[in-house]
Amino acid sequence: MTGTPAPFTAGDPAPFTAGDYGARMRRAAEAAADAGLDGVLIAPGPDLVWLTGYRPVETERLTLLVLRAGQDPVLVVPTLEAPDAAAAAPMLTLRDWTDGKDPYAAAASLVGSEGRFGVSDNSWALHLLGLQRRLPDTRYVALTEALPMLRAVKDAAEVARLAEAGAAADAAYEEIRKVPFAGRGEADVAADLAELLRHFGHSQVDFTIVASGPNGANPHHEAGERVIERGDMVVLDFGGLKHGYGSDTSRTVHVGEPDLEERRVHDVVRAAQEAGVAAVRPGAACQDVDRAARAVITEAGYGEYFIHRTGHGIGVTTHEPPYMIEGEELPLVPGMCFSVEPGIYLPGRFGVRIEDIVTVTEEGGWRLNTTSREMAIVD
Amino acid sequence: MTGTPAPFTAGDPAPFTAGDYGARMRRAAEAAADAGLDGVLIAPGPDLVWLTGYRPVETERLTLLVLRAGQDPVLVVPTLEAPDAAAAAPMLTLRDWTDGKDPYAAAASLVGSEGRFGVSDNSWALHLLGLQRRLPDTRYVALTEALPMLRAVKDAAEVARLAEAGAAADAAYEEIRKVPFAGRGEADVAADLAELLRHFGHSQVDFTIVASGPNGANPHHEAGERVIERGDMVVLDFGGLKHGYGSDTSRTVHVGEPDLEERRVHDVVRAAQEAGVAAVRPGAACQDVDRAARAVITEAGYGEYFIHRTGHGIGVTTHEPPYMIEGEELPLVPGMCFSVEPGIYLPGRFGVRIEDIVTVTEEGGWRLNTTSREMAIVD
Repeated sequence: MTGTPAPFTAGDPAPFTAGDYGARMRRAAEAAADAGLDGVLIAPGPDLVWLTGYRPVETERLTLLVLRAGQDPVLVVPTLEAPDAAAAAPMLTLRDWTDGKDPYAAAASLVGSEGRFGVSDNSWALHLLGLQRRLPDTRYVALTEALPMLRAVKDAAEVARLAEAGAAADAAYEEIRKVPFAGRGEADVAADLAELLRHFGHSQVDFTIVASGPNGANPHHEAGERVIERGDMVVLDFGGLKHGYGSDTSRTVHVGEPDLEERRVHDVVRAAQEAGVAAVRPGAACQDVDRAARAVITEAGYGEYFIHRTGHGIGVTTHEPPYMIEGEELPLVPGMCFSVEPGIYLPGRFGVRIEDIVTVTEEGGWRLNTTSREMAIVD
Repeated sequence: MTGTPAPFTAGDPAPFTAGDYGARMRRAAEAAADAGLDGVLIAPGPDLVWLTGYRPVETERLTLLVLRAGQDPVLVVPTLEAPDAAAAAPMLTLRDWTDGKDPYAAAASLVGSEGRFGVSDNSWALHLLGLQRRLPDTRYVALTEALPMLRAVKDAAEVARLAEAGAAADAAYEEIRKVPFAGRGEADVAADLAELLRHFGHSQVDFTIVASGPNGANPHHEAGERVIERGDMVVLDFGGLKHGYGSDTSRTVHVGEPDLEERRVHDVVRAAQEAGVAAVRPGAACQDVDRAARAVITEAGYGEYFIHRTGHGIGVTTHEPPYMIEGEELPLVPGMCFSVEPGIYLPGRFGVRIEDIVTVTEEGGWRLNTTSREMAIVD
């Protein structure tokens, strides 16, 4: 990896303020009320990070943010984590509970014995069951089902961060094309990719898929012991977080010259990806993006080999609503950011996937990944 | 960190076999039946790793292992992850579901419309709510509440791994005592600790708490920007996974000579930790370990400053049942492994914590951490 250019020096974006978080919490509480919910119950994880900036990990000790329209947000928190919570999210009222006490009693007085609440998708079953036991007449619904749009529509500061993360991933792709592939293990190329993502400012690397030859036919193959050979197709799919927002892009490269079928399959996927992006416009349904991409692949005779949805949202995580999938009728709204990533997977032979993050604008889809989608020939 | 000895060269332990996992799954199903459950529902995470060796991450796509006494284990898995699941856990029957289909329908036919099931604590609320909606008359209970002993009692191969992880953490402690503390940031010492844990064979570092001076009074302070000064107490608490099993040990060191009160508080915590370990014997209750340690601290007049439970289990995670806490009446059983880690936290001043992992034997508690519990004087 000689010749790697210096990292971007744009500087860190201004951090979100207590005011930003306060506005998000109010918006969430109001959206819940509009959806007929009495409030939302937020667990540690991406919802809590997005709403408050506080990043504990979900454990057996209950931490729960209770948001209700017209009321101040309250965080139920273990006593020994209260100092960290107060420092990270000074705008929250804390209600702490001590080891040995019943945390669900502390939460119950905020939730109430009836009503209907949205609950973070990733909230632990342990905690949901604890609430259900304590408040058997209160009803709960998964937050992404109740309020699928809550984090899905990004504001300008969020799109800017996603664009920066995308540009960093693109810079990593431009560099990884220059490294040797033939004769090296997938895991070695994956390690190069991870290093490049960090070099270009990622604080966290979530995945570095290097799927060569037949491994490419398994969409979720990560990177293994297989030694890449001349003549292999290689699916590269990588991403992580930069300044707290995600990157996720895929390109499929070829080691040496491809044969006719490899070229054809790559062309089909590229056309499908173009069609998917072209279908992005305000008011279209999520499923329209999937249909547009899938139609190209089906038309070309490869429909049965496109075995996953076309895309997923991205934000403070690399996988979140909205999902570009048949049956998802949510309308696209300016500010939504998601992947468009069709693929063809030929069992035992090879796979091709091409993926960009796209944001919805009034004028249509705007790509946050801009590297060439031509099949790159690598060594 | 000059003079760091070479890593242990004992070699990797023999991996667990399909037979080992099969035996664990049978044991879980039988324990569930004995507890009046119709089966257990296992989510990605430590339960699934322990039962099958398969390590996907929990996502919005349902992966669920269904175990019922007298029936073969079945794994509900997304189609695009089925190849990885089959490779990782060839002994499982897979029931795959494709993007756009209802995964809870696939699970429902295995669970049935009545009965009572244990559910992994960390299973996502999204998935539990999906099952509850599909099977409203089936009841669910958190696995650690229904079967707290399931993973709590380790077999000889597991204790050996925990002992090796403990020895590696101890080796890291012996080395970290030699690095300079005064004038360096907490985060720098923490980085040294992480490097040492990896050097001694940890594949994953979960935490490296370096809490100096007043930061030591916050039990969950990790490691920050504070520059360590001569005269500081410094709480070190670190661990991670080696060969898939956890380490977790704490020692409190002093930069230069301590004063009389610092020495006294350290002596009290050390005596409390000794008392906690001395209370470990088969048939004692978990809360007896907490009571024994707490009594020493209360007696010395610091009771209000010991603000957390005395210990937690350890295994394929660094935090799991059993918990050494008032009210926990589970009896100790040979093979249980857990921390004994009393502390005193004087707000605005300093903290002291001393922690060893202990395994229950017929003869009493056997420490898996064996470094000196005297207060080390560091530079």
